[in-house]
Amino acid sequence: MDAISVIRTKRDRGELSDAQIDWVIDAYTRGEVADEQMSSLAMAILLNGMNRREIARWTAAMINSGERMDFSSLTRPTADKHSTGGVGDKITLPLAPLVAACGAAVPQLSGRGLGHTGGTLDKLESIPGWRALLSNEEMLNVLDTTGAVICAAGDGLAPADKKLYALRDVTGTVEAIPLIASSIMSKKIAEGTGSLVLDVKVGTGAFMKTIEDARELAATMVGLGTDHGVRTVALLTDMSTPLGLTAGNALEVRESIEVLSGGGPSDVVDLTLALAREMLAAAGLHDTDPAKALADGSAMDVWRRMITAQGGDPDAPLPTSREQHVIKAPASGTLTRLDAYDIGVAAWRLGAGRARKEDPVQAGAGIEMHAKPGDQVTEGQPLLTLHTDTPDRFEYALDSLTNAYDIAQPGTDFTASPVVLERIA
Amino acid sequence: MDAISVIRTKRDRGELSDAQIDWVIDAYTRGEVADEQMSSLAMAILLNGMNRREIARWTAAMINSGERMDFSSLTRPTADKHSTGGVGDKITLPLAPLVAACGAAVPQLSGRGLGHTGGTLDKLESIPGWRALLSNEEMLNVLDTTGAVICAAGDGLAPADKKLYALRDVTGTVEAIPLIASSIMSKKIAEGTGSLVLDVKVGTGAFMKTIEDARELAATMVGLGTDHGVRTVALLTDMSTPLGLTAGNALEVRESIEVLSGGGPSDVVDLTLALAREMLAAAGLHDTDPAKALADGSAMDVWRRMITAQGGDPDAPLPTSREQHVIKAPASGTLTRLDAYDIGVAAWRLGAGRARKEDPVQAGAGIEMHAKPGDQVTEGQPLLTLHTDTPDRFEYALDSLTNAYDIAQPGTDFTASPVVLERIA
Repeated sequence: MDAISVIRTKRDRGELSDAQIDWVIDAYTRGEVADEQMSSLAMAILLNGMNRREIARWTAAMINSGERMDFSSLTRPTADKHSTGGVGDKITLPLAPLVAACGAAVPQLSGRGLGHTGGTLDKLESIPGWRALLSNEEMLNVLDTTGAVICAAGDGLAPADKKLYALRDVTGTVEAIPLIASSIMSKKIAEGTGSLVLDVKVGTGAFMKTIEDARELAATMVGLGTDHGVRTVALLTDMSTPLGLTAGNALEVRESIEVLSGGGPSDVVDLTLALAREMLAAAGLHDTDPAKALADGSAMDVWRRMITAQGGDPDAPLPTSREQHVIKAPASGTLTRLDAYDIGVAAWRLGAGRARKEDPVQAGAGIEMHAKPGDQVTEGQPLLTLHTDTPDRFEYALDSLTNAYDIAQPGTDFTASPVVLERIA
Repeated sequence: MDAISVIRTKRDRGELSDAQIDWVIDAYTRGEVADEQMSSLAMAILLNGMNRREIARWTAAMINSGERMDFSSLTRPTADKHSTGGVGDKITLPLAPLVAACGAAVPQLSGRGLGHTGGTLDKLESIPGWRALLSNEEMLNVLDTTGAVICAAGDGLAPADKKLYALRDVTGTVEAIPLIASSIMSKKIAEGTGSLVLDVKVGTGAFMKTIEDARELAATMVGLGTDHGVRTVALLTDMSTPLGLTAGNALEVRESIEVLSGGGPSDVVDLTLALAREMLAAAGLHDTDPAKALADGSAMDVWRRMITAQGGDPDAPLPTSREQHVIKAPASGTLTRLDAYDIGVAAWRLGAGRARKEDPVQAGAGIEMHAKPGDQVTEGQPLLTLHTDTPDRFEYALDSLTNAYDIAQPGTDFTASPVVLERIA
């Protein structure tokens, strides 16, 4: 077995055998297959695809590259959620304590933002004192005592995926459905959750730009989860418009706390409840009503305990940016489009995201949106407020917003698309 | 400009701009673009192609990555030849002194063998004392005094290609026509020859398996040479059968000396003369007859001077292998096929070639062929003699010869294909 023959098989549109897949994942993890060989193979996979058997074997090989966690000591059923990433996607923050308040155990091993999509850990780190890095023992303890934990995935889980993900990020091979599906599912299956709800984003601000691609990715992941005994369901959700009225780290924590307080923007509340219902159903908890847990403060109670258990102060003031710049509506009328990708890039350029893994993020940077598609706006009213600590970034951020929104004649008939587009199980 | 955006352009079937190509070649040579990024781009180029403008710019960028040689001090016109590589392809050995004997200056910057095709330098190194590595000054001196020089290309010539070639070799990205064409032509143009004849092999023993691919490669290279002011012509030649009756290092030197002595197998003589005529015509030397220079010993005189000038002893006995194994004809009849690839792999396994760049080769190893397609053979007569210093290699070599030849009923009407198939100018 050698790397070149594996690469050639896929390059020439052949199927990789089980033995080839097992060998190449193991040899890459051990460093016997070099980065430049794996990236060449990843590009061939991106352009020539993998079939269902190949993807299943690839995923299994990545799971087998590391340890598996065990939640069997917990008395509650486990329910996990994964989002493919979007702009303003703070849903994990209210969702995890909400589902815990309804009786499930919610282990959320999360990541950091890269590119125009934000990262859950970056958002939570804007809370003074909060720590993302827990030992396995600490993680199980927070999960057991509060019902939910959001933390960084340990190094022992699917190390092959960790290495491959970093490689794909710098070699233009991120956007391959077989590799995205196996990357997500290898970590979730190794983590050992009993049920999993996938939030597959579709639209300008998502990796999947078309509903067809999103469907293919969702069906692939649902199949992988089901084959490994994880009750898995996927919602395809809209990411042509940012979620909620904020994109940025502390800005999104603030909005999440509004939702946990029973308020918040309707699209964030709707999606949080839709995902909570799916997670509870998948966990076999059919008799609970998540809307009630938002209204009665029980979800907020879990949030406060969860943040405190990881060193955070839920009552500390959140960081704010040093400088703001307001973009005003150039005309009166109906806002018909607010582009998720453009807003995501602008927030990233303002300092909310990072260009390289080792870059720091600004806790206060980002964008506040004062109107969403379907809203009437008046000429001269604030449309967007840009936040940053480094005002020389404004011009660069404004560059990405020149075509970010459309305003139609006043009174134009317009219905915003629903947040949840399809369900795949 | 960044590597990922260049990779994405080609991955998504776009055209690379001149600025993207210039940047990526320069940044790769400087080490700013990493190997794993370049291999991903190479795979995207292999699968999605490049158009003529892109290939021309890519070639120019590789030429500009290093120094250019200058033959303007020579009084004779320069003529160079390049073969895309085959089995038993010792043509450079008799050809360079022959064309020099007819009045041209022949600078042959050559390579080593890798995989199943042999390398000119490996063959010549079986001559006791002969040195492949010359300084630029030594090279010009040998060329000026003897009319021909065969030596290793210096490190200064197209360093981007040197780096990219080594990368492609280990990442399954060798077989891309745009990359093969630009690799060959960047070195030949940087070398500064006035005219160039390309021997593009086609058949089982060549990189190009089909005449269509060979035509595309030949036309691409002729276009590149012409655009850079090099008089360039290509012959498509058969490589479904090995050239001559030997494949191996010292074995092929012996056969080359037979040709220079006025004998040798007819296919080797025919191809040597055909290429010599093209080189002389491209160099503007229309009044010379290379067949005469073989017959009257003047080509042999240049050979002896050239070998001597590089430290070799043209009269020293050539190395021979320690062990031989004879394969006998299993039936009487007409030999209708002798597969170039299978013979090449067997010679390589016997020790004539190398698996890694740093491996040594055996000077005496290889294969002697006692019949060629079209010949009548008698059951029990020697068909092939295998040579090696390490007899444990026989079994491994025999594995690749189980389907290497066909013998048809005695008297079967059979005409072997001509060596030269097409001419492209």
